[in-house]
Amino acid sequence: MLNNKMTELLNVKYPIIQAPMAGGVTTSTLVAEVSNSGGLGMIGAGYLSPVQTREQIKEVKQLTSHPFGINLFVPNEFMVTEKQIKSANQFLNPIRQQLNLEQKDSMDIPNYNDVYETFKEQIKIVMEENVPICSFTFGIPSNEIIADLKECNIILMGTATSVREAVKNEKAGMDIVVVQGSEAGGHRGSFIDGDQESLIGLMSLIPQVVDTVNIPVVAAGGIMDGRGLMASICLGAKGVQMGTAFLTCVESGAHEVHKDAILNANEEETVLTRSFSGKWARGIKNKFILEMQKQETLLPDYPVQNTLTQDIRKASSAQNTQDFMSLWSGQSPRLATSQTVNSLIKKLIREAKKINSNMYME
Amino acid sequence: MLNNKMTELLNVKYPIIQAPMAGGVTTSTLVAEVSNSGGLGMIGAGYLSPVQTREQIKEVKQLTSHPFGINLFVPNEFMVTEKQIKSANQFLNPIRQQLNLEQKDSMDIPNYNDVYETFKEQIKIVMEENVPICSFTFGIPSNEIIADLKECNIILMGTATSVREAVKNEKAGMDIVVVQGSEAGGHRGSFIDGDQESLIGLMSLIPQVVDTVNIPVVAAGGIMDGRGLMASICLGAKGVQMGTAFLTCVESGAHEVHKDAILNANEEETVLTRSFSGKWARGIKNKFILEMQKQETLLPDYPVQNTLTQDIRKASSAQNTQDFMSLWSGQSPRLATSQTVNSLIKKLIREAKKINSNMYME
Repeated sequence: MLNNKMTELLNVKYPIIQAPMAGGVTTSTLVAEVSNSGGLGMIGAGYLSPVQTREQIKEVKQLTSHPFGINLFVPNEFMVTEKQIKSANQFLNPIRQQLNLEQKDSMDIPNYNDVYETFKEQIKIVMEENVPICSFTFGIPSNEIIADLKECNIILMGTATSVREAVKNEKAGMDIVVVQGSEAGGHRGSFIDGDQESLIGLMSLIPQVVDTVNIPVVAAGGIMDGRGLMASICLGAKGVQMGTAFLTCVESGAHEVHKDAILNANEEETVLTRSFSGKWARGIKNKFILEMQKQETLLPDYPVQNTLTQDIRKASSAQNTQDFMSLWSGQSPRLATSQTVNSLIKKLIREAKKINSNMYME
Repeated sequence: MLNNKMTELLNVKYPIIQAPMAGGVTTSTLVAEVSNSGGLGMIGAGYLSPVQTREQIKEVKQLTSHPFGINLFVPNEFMVTEKQIKSANQFLNPIRQQLNLEQKDSMDIPNYNDVYETFKEQIKIVMEENVPICSFTFGIPSNEIIADLKECNIILMGTATSVREAVKNEKAGMDIVVVQGSEAGGHRGSFIDGDQESLIGLMSLIPQVVDTVNIPVVAAGGIMDGRGLMASICLGAKGVQMGTAFLTCVESGAHEVHKDAILNANEEETVLTRSFSGKWARGIKNKFILEMQKQETLLPDYPVQNTLTQDIRKASSAQNTQDFMSLWSGQSPRLATSQTVNSLIKKLIREAKKINSNMYME
């Protein structure tokens, strides 16, 4: 029951994918431990430079002989004016003051072409390094890139938050689609009608996608244990992708303050915000989110706002205060535990098997 | 596997509850057919007068010898000023014009004491008529009322949208708690921090509530078929409550325009709005919701706004136009079907059994 078309495609023992959390969470140890424990470890390479990308791939290869994957952010075109940056800085400067940071009134406006060049470099590295699996967030790469990756026999996974997005992924040639429910922590992967994110709960999203596409569907959002795995399979998914559950593991690179915030949170404390990055994302409500709330729809788009808040997030981390960090978390923080990756996966499989045997009816 | 503490308490064959949809959807035939088919039919009595309440109970009794239930709205205190009503009417009058309705600039302000008296009358009738099961939305009745109902051996079910609300229900003496996920159609049952409704997806909500309370948990929101039933059970629920799935059944009293709107909608088309009633509710986006969107947070609270829009909703129904009707729907409209209650329940149980036998692993 836990072996299916998806585990075959990915060549893994269990239908469990560790979500590719960007920003230092997916250390090489975390990724390798997931793969060594029978799941699929994923490098969150969204914020990595080409050099860092290659380095981490090499590192993970040293630590595991099992398949692992990498996730890339598909660049989106964006528009930004000097005025928008000035205005965003006006909101951010009082926070900078609280953190003893330098005031800012401008920034080097990022260039879409540069962002796209970095992405193309990363794709090249993924192919050169023969990474077995590559997944995408925030969109679908060009036909040309997809063809190149397929030529190298790399298994491709797309992200969707609606049936329409899942269909687009299938049509583009993705081998697997990860459906992200409204429960999910971190960035929303929505790429159609970007402003008006689609917030469908997994109970609704999984079966409606499964009925429409033919590629294997992986469920993501709020799944933390064997119950979530088995529920997803009942709904028609072939496996699960879990973020928050791995974020609090001992091998994760998340800041201890972030881990503690999740371990002490309840399900009502996460909110959607675009204040950190310019893209909607789910995290634990903190001082930064509350202070920015009124302005959040006026802030510049990703990646501009992300660059603007970088010094603030960094300083908050360095000062060990959760007030201005992005405390990404899904809607199930009460189910988070602090343990090793291996014991988490073992526990999950034990739970799944127990549910399965309890459920059997004549 | 489908028999458990909840089916025993309710004395039903299957752990399937038909959601008590108020406003004419839950006809006596619908309620009785659900009970006759092995589920639990529920009268949505939220908008019924005491006389109507008694009448429908008597009618259902004529049509089934199986247990059935009734749902009551727990009255919430509300404040409203003449000015608020004037201003709401200003937004509503252009819509009235489109529907050839009389313009309004005032209304009889409803009185909380009257609303509460009606509620108390309904409770009395439920006891006099020996309705086996009574559920509540929008809050928890007084200790006195709960004690009276328990004295009559009536099984009590509360509604919760968060762990905190589930705990309150358990502490108050409810026998069962229905957890309403963000996927659910119609009114949000939230009663703590009313303004800031809690929108937790079922994948997160069910296990976190199950881990905290000891009474049986019933899952509600986006559940339409055997997959949703089995998934809910994997997550720890003892049963499901389904609204939209029964709303499109032939026995339901929903307007054909409403049924058609659901049967033709997709999962991205439902939104949360408080424009119809003053309480947040999920329905299919239509002209009314879009026209009121900008003002919706300024509108009077329930039940004032509900009374204000009554003529509009009525006229829209009478004119067979969906533009100004409240088209309540959960997030799974693609899974809605037009069939009899009996065939829906039979199909659901067949699907659940099939999933169960496919899943069994050594």
